[in-house]
Amino acid sequence: MAKLPPGFRFHPTDVELIMYYLKRKIMGKKILFEAISELNIYKFSPSDLPDKCCYKSKDLEWYFFCPSERKYASGFRMNRTTETGFWKITGRDRRVLYDEKFVGSVKTLVFHQGKAPRGLRTDWVIHEYRFEDKDMAVAGFSLVPF
Amino acid sequence: MAKLPPGFRFHPTDVELIMYYLKRKIMGKKILFEAISELNIYKFSPSDLPDKCCYKSKDLEWYFFCPSERKYASGFRMNRTTETGFWKITGRDRRVLYDEKFVGSVKTLVFHQGKAPRGLRTDWVIHEYRFEDKDMAVAGFSLVPF
Repeated sequence: MAKLPPGFRFHPTDVELIMYYLKRKIMGKKILFEAISELNIYKFSPSDLPDKCCYKSKDLEWYFFCPSERKYASGFRMNRTTETGFWKITGRDRRVLYDEKFVGSVKTLVFHQGKAPRGLRTDWVIHEYRFEDKDMAVAGFSLVPF
Repeated sequence: MAKLPPGFRFHPTDVELIMYYLKRKIMGKKILFEAISELNIYKFSPSDLPDKCCYKSKDLEWYFFCPSERKYASGFRMNRTTETGFWKITGRDRRVLYDEKFVGSVKTLVFHQGKAPRGLRTDWVIHEYRFEDKDMAVAGFSLVPF
């Protein structure tokens, strides 16, 4: 990826993330600009994730595509545990509208160190982007230190 | 200027505006990316300015370089009147530091319709960027509808 000129940044809206990046990824279409890295984020500690992102900037936000893994083959619960802790859903989903139509949703998850249901809350937050309400094989994530 | 890919925006910091864009402009150096239009902003109503900006986006912020005009040849007061009103300084200057050094300052001005000192306050705001504290021939501006 070519370096961006000064002042230019990757600051996508929810709609751009869902309707362009995530939709194209799910459909297997090319994305010309490598701003979002493909990575199983649950294999890493939150603090190791920034270095794994292909898009380098001084912004404290990083974007990833991540394969969705079920906790049990038969169920819908996602496996969000990592080696050192787990990502816990916080608050309600945010619905994303485009042209007055529902196009996706955003979950907020906070990293907790240790084992569920206990664990020590940290300042690491991810937003999980889903295309429509379908159970897709890939979700989009943005990571921020709270 | 080539169209930016989805999610990429011109969101410069104070330091980038002063140390890259404004400094290069003052020094007569080339700026490869036309994100900032050169324009005498005092010749227009605020609502006509967005169309004059070369950088098109959905962001409600526009950037300009503007020649500085003195009110009186002998003095330092700037002439900030337009045909339909005037830009009035609001609040104190914001000092911009880079590597702990003072590199410039930012003034906030609000557009008032009518004649000074009266006039009807509007929601149009500009931020005037100055390189160091020198009396340069060009200032940088960002325009926002409040």
